[in-house]
Amino acid sequence: MTEYMDELDAFSYREKIAAGAPVLIPAGSIEQHGRHMPLNVDVLLSRAMAGRTAKQIGAIVAPPIVYGYKSQQRSGGGNHLTGTTSLDAETVIAIAKALVLEFARHGAGKIGIINGHFENYQFLYEGVDLALRELRHGGTEDVTVMLLSYWDFVDDRTIDELYPDGFTGWDLEHGGVLETSLMLHLFPERVDMTQVDDVPPAELPNYDVLPVRPELTPASGCLSSGANASAEKGKLLLDRATSAMAGAIAAEFDLTDSGT
Amino acid sequence: MTEYMDELDAFSYREKIAAGAPVLIPAGSIEQHGRHMPLNVDVLLSRAMAGRTAKQIGAIVAPPIVYGYKSQQRSGGGNHLTGTTSLDAETVIAIAKALVLEFARHGAGKIGIINGHFENYQFLYEGVDLALRELRHGGTEDVTVMLLSYWDFVDDRTIDELYPDGFTGWDLEHGGVLETSLMLHLFPERVDMTQVDDVPPAELPNYDVLPVRPELTPASGCLSSGANASAEKGKLLLDRATSAMAGAIAAEFDLTDSGT
Amino acid sequence: MTEYMDELDAFSYREKIAAGAPVLIPAGSIEQHGRHMPLNVDVLLSRAMAGRTAKQIGAIVAPPIVYGYKSQQRSGGGNHLTGTTSLDAETVIAIAKALVLEFARHGAGKIGIINGHFENYQFLYEGVDLALRELRHGGTEDVTVMLLSYWDFVDDRTIDELYPDGFTGWDLEHGGVLETSLMLHLFPERVDMTQVDDVPPAELPNYDVLPVRPELTPASGCLSSGANASAEKGKLLLDRATSAMAGAIAAEFDLTDSGT
Amino acid sequence: MTEYMDELDAFSYREKIAAGAPVLIPAGSIEQHGRHMPLNVDVLLSRAMAGRTAKQIGAIVAPPIVYGYKSQQRSGGGNHLTGTTSLDAETVIAIAKALVLEFARHGAGKIGIINGHFENYQFLYEGVDLALRELRHGGTEDVTVMLLSYWDFVDDRTIDELYPDGFTGWDLEHGGVLETSLMLHLFPERVDMTQVDDVPPAELPNYDVLPVRPELTPASGCLSSGANASAEKGKLLLDRATSAMAGAIAAEFDLTDSGT
Amino acid sequence: MTEYMDELDAFSYREKIAAGAPVLIPAGSIEQHGRHMPLNVDVLLSRAMAGRTAKQIGAIVAPPIVYGYKSQQRSGGGNHLTGTTSLDAETVIAIAKALVLEFARHGAGKIGIINGHFENYQFLYEGVDLALRELRHGGTEDVTVMLLSYWDFVDDRTIDELYPDGFTGWDLEHGGVLETSLMLHLFPERVDMTQVDDVPPAELPNYDVLPVRPELTPASGCLSSGANASAEKGKLLLDRATSAMAGAIAAEFDLTDSGT
Amino acid sequence: MTEYMDELDAFSYREKIAAGAPVLIPAGSIEQHGRHMPLNVDVLLSRAMAGRTAKQIGAIVAPPIVYGYKSQQRSGGGNHLTGTTSLDAETVIAIAKALVLEFARHGAGKIGIINGHFENYQFLYEGVDLALRELRHGGTEDVTVMLLSYWDFVDDRTIDELYPDGFTGWDLEHGGVLETSLMLHLFPERVDMTQVDDVPPAELPNYDVLPVRPELTPASGCLSSGANASAEKGKLLLDRATSAMAGAIAAEFDLTDSGT
Repeated sequence: MTEYMDELDAFSYREKIAAGAPVLIPAGSIEQHGRHMPLNVDVLLSRAMAGRTAKQIGAIVAPPIVYGYKSQQRSGGGNHLTGTTSLDAETVIAIAKALVLEFARHGAGKIGIINGHFENYQFLYEGVDLALRELRHGGTEDVTVMLLSYWDFVDDRTIDELYPDGFTGWDLEHGGVLETSLMLHLFPERVDMTQVDDVPPAELPNYDVLPVRPELTPASGCLSSGANASAEKGKLLLDRATSAMAGAIAAEFDLTDSGT
Repeated sequence: MTEYMDELDAFSYREKIAAGAPVLIPAGSIEQHGRHMPLNVDVLLSRAMAGRTAKQIGAIVAPPIVYGYKSQQRSGGGNHLTGTTSLDAETVIAIAKALVLEFARHGAGKIGIINGHFENYQFLYEGVDLALRELRHGGTEDVTVMLLSYWDFVDDRTIDELYPDGFTGWDLEHGGVLETSLMLHLFPERVDMTQVDDVPPAELPNYDVLPVRPELTPASGCLSSGANASAEKGKLLLDRATSAMAGAIAAEFDLTDSGT
Repeated sequence: MTEYMDELDAFSYREKIAAGAPVLIPAGSIEQHGRHMPLNVDVLLSRAMAGRTAKQIGAIVAPPIVYGYKSQQRSGGGNHLTGTTSLDAETVIAIAKALVLEFARHGAGKIGIINGHFENYQFLYEGVDLALRELRHGGTEDVTVMLLSYWDFVDDRTIDELYPDGFTGWDLEHGGVLETSLMLHLFPERVDMTQVDDVPPAELPNYDVLPVRPELTPASGCLSSGANASAEKGKLLLDRATSAMAGAIAAEFDLTDSGT
Repeated sequence: MTEYMDELDAFSYREKIAAGAPVLIPAGSIEQHGRHMPLNVDVLLSRAMAGRTAKQIGAIVAPPIVYGYKSQQRSGGGNHLTGTTSLDAETVIAIAKALVLEFARHGAGKIGIINGHFENYQFLYEGVDLALRELRHGGTEDVTVMLLSYWDFVDDRTIDELYPDGFTGWDLEHGGVLETSLMLHLFPERVDMTQVDDVPPAELPNYDVLPVRPELTPASGCLSSGANASAEKGKLLLDRATSAMAGAIAAEFDLTDSGT
Repeated sequence: MTEYMDELDAFSYREKIAAGAPVLIPAGSIEQHGRHMPLNVDVLLSRAMAGRTAKQIGAIVAPPIVYGYKSQQRSGGGNHLTGTTSLDAETVIAIAKALVLEFARHGAGKIGIINGHFENYQFLYEGVDLALRELRHGGTEDVTVMLLSYWDFVDDRTIDELYPDGFTGWDLEHGGVLETSLMLHLFPERVDMTQVDDVPPAELPNYDVLPVRPELTPASGCLSSGANASAEKGKLLLDRATSAMAGAIAAEFDLTDSGT
Repeated sequence: MTEYMDELDAFSYREKIAAGAPVLIPAGSIEQHGRHMPLNVDVLLSRAMAGRTAKQIGAIVAPPIVYGYKSQQRSGGGNHLTGTTSLDAETVIAIAKALVLEFARHGAGKIGIINGHFENYQFLYEGVDLALRELRHGGTEDVTVMLLSYWDFVDDRTIDELYPDGFTGWDLEHGGVLETSLMLHLFPERVDMTQVDDVPPAELPNYDVLPVRPELTPASGCLSSGANASAEKGKLLLDRATSAMAGAIAAEFDLTDSGT
């Protein structure tokens, strides 16, 4: 049976929840990803990451958070770019809070958020914190929520394999090797490698300035080049990251038997 | 080229927007739809309706609003049901407002919201109103937004064809002939007709009571039977509704040439 | 003793509440109602409907919600019209929530909202839902709230009697036969029948467009003509609707003995 | 023609607004006022004060703000008392803001709020400030709002006449000579002088403590005795206060000719 | 050991809280105070008042609320003045609410807010009320909060000593004898008496008008003259007010042994 | 003249603003910092960093944001710890927004926020973004805001000098060498080196889990040891970071002449 909640009917979903399945919520964004990838990379990747992870631990994947927090220049090119379509912090917080409360109402006590858009993290965190505070006030103490950004589960060994010439940090990976490789492996029909703008990584200041100075973002909107991406690298990233996430979730939630 | 924004790269999207393409935003929900259909029927149908409509008028389909307002007992079975996963009004309002503001920032002056979940409507309306008020304060006067619920574009002739034994109203169509037929036509692999609970339409009071009395909702969660649904009816519904919506949008936005 | 809370002193009110009296809250609006009726028709009628209903079941009528949600073009002419004075959704929600919480604090476990302004409904619903959620978190489970729109209690037989030439739907009844007749019966001094603009019903699209196109609203602001209104029809409407509402409330709240 | 907006039809209202009439908004509350007066004293008095003032300067009286901010123990007995029915600060602020924005939209540039409930004041002030900030952002600079509490327009001479044995301050006047006299003059049928609890003024601390200590509020809920009230005193208060308010408003708004 | 929380390490703080120490929160503002005093007078004085009071009753002084509600013309000169830096009501409410909830989480059941900026009061009150409501919903009933404005603890005898020529009311004391004297006693290096603008008290109307008429505020921004201020008066004020506050808090919180 | 706004009188402040001085806002928190440092380390250090930076570029230092966002376990030990006193995200956002709007009202077009509490950053960013959006709607385009976290201005060379045995990342620097050294240099009387808990750095997972597992935070509350801290290191850190920040601000704001 599918691990994707949106493909399940309510009765099948209820059985899984009643059996104690964790719920994993992918959190994406609609954000420009250069000329070579579509606007919903973060939705596709967070959902796929959650799906592969869920398969390993018998979890359910909730429908994704499609629109996320504003793109920031130092991690996503900036929210001034046409195509990038974002929500205010308050709304991202409210969505995360509502989803935790709703899944808790369903009876899910083990919830994970699989983040695929850097800028979302703190707002998802706040939403979770508010939901748990409200649950606690209502006398519910047995809900636990994990927040994971999938790139944090790419270990140093993998980084060395993927970036033989040196790694410039996750912040500059917007539209670069990581995302492009994963897309090539998972959704090759959505990537046009002939359109990669193979230029050196962006040089961005160690602070933010608002309104952004648009000239600081490369013309492609990507902060580093995806030219060295490959489907093989994508498979490696997917395997390593989901395996590590599955391990962390199984340990934290004390899952005794895995899924598949 | 695809009409779906989430499959477009930002540069192609910018060209379409610059050429004056309207943007259509599907608004769905995650809501139980009986034993025979998945939880994301409203997302799938609003997105497909928007897609077919967009094709006829050269519009872009924005990524869908996946989570919607709470299911109400008289139109969706009620929000007490496990699987149904909803947002508070404030959040639905905020999402609609943010999307209008973001598409306006992109340069889109012609925006439509294609609603596929009855309960969303008033909150989408408020979000649009707030966005336009904010735009007006900022000096932007040239943004127009249409709000359409797709079933309102099913005309009386079609209703007579679809419901030869009499029509009980859109409010009871939750999980019934309309939605099941559309799903059979568009996503047959997601429907299991053997699981349709073929019982008479629910009898619900002419008021709301909260907390809901769960016994008023049929065991299936559907308010009427989908047993008489068929892919042919679905095709008819899709053709008639999208054709009517395309006509209304083209007229309202004064679109001189159509798409495709 | 009066059923109107605002005419009661606090001590008399406390006795009634302690005896288990339900509380009915009228929800109106300040909205243009043509040249022949005043701006507070919705306040007057919801309050009178609540009053007559309360008399039959021993309920208390709370002071009315005077200002309501924005007038929408398809049910009230639109909020662009001067005189119409409205609140944002968030505020209507907050008022409904606060009133439910306050009456619950007083000890009222049976609360009804008698809506007299179409556009209010979904926002009142959300306010009630939020209040009950907060009460539930605080451990209070014994508060029930009904939401009623008085026109939903006009049965088909009455409609046939009132509209011998055919009924065009409640949505077009803004300033028409229903409201004018009720005003003629209840507050004849506030109606000037010489000012009725006797034109055919408005023809409005099956969608909303914002900003509204003002030319779609008839010059009078009324969506149908009140020329066929009469005090007799008003009496019939009042009797039938309040009797039906009283029956529904008594049944839902299990009221064993009726009022005066 | 009446000065009360809620009795006007929209067309007559528009004429008055177009002629430059100021709009006065009464702000009341639903609050216990002892055994001898009804729960809506603050609504009745603020509305009557506004009405008499409006008559002198050709102003329009908006429908009242019926529900106000929470009663505080040192000025209204406290919000723990059954019957007192209040809104949170945020909602009072939102109502005041919305009304200023709506009347400004109508074209009213001269708006007054006539406050009749001590605890409302700061929240009305904030609502006005937020509305004017929003108007300013939108380019509207020609709206002016006055905030008046009617008791501030009772001068020292009148206080000496009304309280020959000494005045204990407006804060303790809740349910006392001021309000009871005004009610006796304006709405004698709503006062039952046999129910006045003629005890010395309450002795309340010079700070607030929450939760309130209920024993600090007198059993009647009134903070001073209304036994010395009379209709004559009420007439005097009404005349003096409305005359002073009319003078202040006419001067501030530079009204060259008065009304009626 | 210091009574100031911000100078304590967390472990020492925990011991004091565990021993039942009350927490006093100073509430100030950043507001112009004439040519002779700095912008943070209200922060300095509320913190010092809280400190002296805390010493007498073994309380802890929380870090101050630095930014407060908008300055109003009749009590602080108005928020149009450059230098005055204020928060909206909603934010002041949220801060007060959060602090009560946080100190309650720490285990503090006895909390006082020492207000030093007139305009803050009602918003602090609302924040406290909301916090206690949330605590009550969560099952916590043993938290009590006092709200004190320090000038309310200056008794009539002291006023007579300080203002031999007559007292014009606390509202006009902005930048006058009270604040200047306290500053001279506590922070003489922050006062420049040569810069006092010795003019008669401001004459302000008995209502508010927004936008403010700037000409109503004296050029200095002070509403009365501080020329008669002295360090001796400051010491007297400090001693009398803190002694009275300490007494009130000890009595209300039933503190059996006092501090240092 | 002092660079600290809270020590300036309003008239001197106005002169500086009129002369084009940038405003730097320190953002701290009240958070446990082990047994050896006080709860307001983040306030003290962000204010001192802002002060030294301001001196070099002729800027004004605004009063600090004293209470900040919740401490998170992976960067501050967690918000479950007694003593740590935090605000919700919404409130931090509102404070940052309000301050930008207020300083813009004063005429300041060059604003910097000097962050001293890791968890604040994204919420400060959102507040700035909302303020600039509101200013833009109001027609103000000439306000620029920089957001800086002071540790981002410690360069690699300095890190090598300070951590000869290897650097474990800023995230674990809570209560460690960085903060302790700065405190030893700036506020030696507030540090008690005998109380440093000299244990290895905390090992924290690469995700968040809520509610936090308290056992993951070391008993001291510090995430790494401050035992190797020294005043000399503090001076070095202060000099290097403020010099780099001054350079960045001067460049970004195009300041032609520096201060002092």
